[in-house]
Amino acid sequence: MSSNVAPGLTWALIQEARARILGKVHRTPVMTSETLDSQANAQLHFKCENFQKAGAFKARGATNAVFALSDSEARSGVATHSSGNHAAALARAAGLRGIPAHIVMPNNAPQAKQASVRRYGGRIVFCEPTLQARESTVEQVLAETGATLIHPYNDLRVMAGQGTTAVELLEDLPDLDVILCPVGGGGQLSGIAVAAKTMKPTVRVIGVEPAGADDAARSFTSGQIVPMLNPQTIADGLRSSLGDKSFAEIRRHVDDIVTVSEESIIQAMRLIWEVLKIIVEPSGAVAYAAIVEGTLDVQGKRVGLVLSGGNLDLDSLPWIKAAC
Amino acid sequence: MSSNVAPGLTWALIQEARARILGKVHRTPVMTSETLDSQANAQLHFKCENFQKAGAFKARGATNAVFALSDSEARSGVATHSSGNHAAALARAAGLRGIPAHIVMPNNAPQAKQASVRRYGGRIVFCEPTLQARESTVEQVLAETGATLIHPYNDLRVMAGQGTTAVELLEDLPDLDVILCPVGGGGQLSGIAVAAKTMKPTVRVIGVEPAGADDAARSFTSGQIVPMLNPQTIADGLRSSLGDKSFAEIRRHVDDIVTVSEESIIQAMRLIWEVLKIIVEPSGAVAYAAIVEGTLDVQGKRVGLVLSGGNLDLDSLPWIKAAC
Repeated sequence: MSSNVAPGLTWALIQEARARILGKVHRTPVMTSETLDSQANAQLHFKCENFQKAGAFKARGATNAVFALSDSEARSGVATHSSGNHAAALARAAGLRGIPAHIVMPNNAPQAKQASVRRYGGRIVFCEPTLQARESTVEQVLAETGATLIHPYNDLRVMAGQGTTAVELLEDLPDLDVILCPVGGGGQLSGIAVAAKTMKPTVRVIGVEPAGADDAARSFTSGQIVPMLNPQTIADGLRSSLGDKSFAEIRRHVDDIVTVSEESIIQAMRLIWEVLKIIVEPSGAVAYAAIVEGTLDVQGKRVGLVLSGGNLDLDSLPWIKAAC
Repeated sequence: MSSNVAPGLTWALIQEARARILGKVHRTPVMTSETLDSQANAQLHFKCENFQKAGAFKARGATNAVFALSDSEARSGVATHSSGNHAAALARAAGLRGIPAHIVMPNNAPQAKQASVRRYGGRIVFCEPTLQARESTVEQVLAETGATLIHPYNDLRVMAGQGTTAVELLEDLPDLDVILCPVGGGGQLSGIAVAAKTMKPTVRVIGVEPAGADDAARSFTSGQIVPMLNPQTIADGLRSSLGDKSFAEIRRHVDDIVTVSEESIIQAMRLIWEVLKIIVEPSGAVAYAAIVEGTLDVQGKRVGLVLSGGNLDLDSLPWIKAAC
């Protein structure tokens, strides 16, 4: 490896992550359905990260990052900017280690998200809902507290933690032909790609993202990061732009990135609720949406699909809002 | 046993049921949650019959009844009256055996319930939505087809099948102090009580029913069956009156029957969705409602709760209807 190339995410980092988070997060189950298999004419294996601690895969990366800190680093706590699943996951991980978590959130963040961070003992620092305010507030928190920033996805410790999902999936199902994974900032997709391609070089790894937040697909095609300026999707966990670290792994290891419509996301989410009898959030249904929409030909294939999370506001469901 | 007492449900029948349905229905998982445990100050073990084949525990009893028939009986098929989970479960079981299922349903039964029966290959016979029309239509179907009637709950084969839920639960968790089970017609509660008290005589078995359909509680107290004339509850699976066979076992083996409010049922259902991330129908949330409402003191206890099913119309959720 030449000296001007960053080392990036390695299999060793993922193995360390796995050992580090063992017992602190769930080994999640894989669900199947004869009904959904016969509709897809494929063998579908749903990796249930909606059952993960704090309700999403984010617990893996956050826990790895927090427990990877040295004692002296850890003493000053951790900080991040997020109004989503990473915020709750980081608060929980910090609580497990007994250190502070400072979470910068826009002052219009939903009450449920705030409550979730507080339940895990996190300290919320509000800012105006602009990118500039968020960045300056994070800088201020870091300066005041000496906390370590744990980025939601553009961080090798986080990416390594997310990769453990694929380790479990391929241990349970070594015969998989393809793995479908949602992509937002790319933390999960990059971790899964590195893990999966190491364990089974022939497995295909495909990212799926909403057409209304298709920066990853465009970045993948053009070979350079295309930022997402005005994402329009119900999948609130997938509105972020790729980071340089996550993009580097995605370019190297991911086979393709495809997009799906909002209608397919909602239909996929509803089918998962109705048939599998489990709650996934819109972002968590995006991988299956690629099958519902017919974007991907998976006929006769053994497919792993990551149901990435299950946190959403039950007062506002997409198929009911339309009816009211 | 004196000659004028019907033999009733025995442990041998439940063991036979278990062997008979093995591989034809799921051994369902048990879920737990630190959050719900700490709220209840107890160890709660949720037996997930919402993940059962056809979405409810009814698959157990229906499958046992269908496969208990002799070949000559089976040839003429089975019949029942039900617009709920038993209908779909019986259609599915009959399909597995390759025999006809005639399902008598009121002509105002929801489309989703009709579709479910048809998907499993059942034949629907419509009748007017009155008790009289239902009974006469069933008689007619039986006369025309020679089918065997499989009652939704007042049938030892059905009760024995439902009892297998408790067998699995106590095999997985031999330390349980108490088992909470919804009660409608009493098929599940009677089967569970016989199985549980045989396997572990010290375990308490408690039935839970909606206050708006409290015939089982009143029957239990008075010592004779009090029919439910005008049930008022969202828990549509629990509106039936007890049968003589189910009531006989409930009197002998159940420790208590308690009631819960509609508000508690809805709150319990929502908590299960939010925290466990799984779909249960209102009837399936009733056992947990007794804990949410504080009806039962389970402090420090190891509690098994039967989540009996997960079939409902996702277009109409109780907490959203109110807001519209």
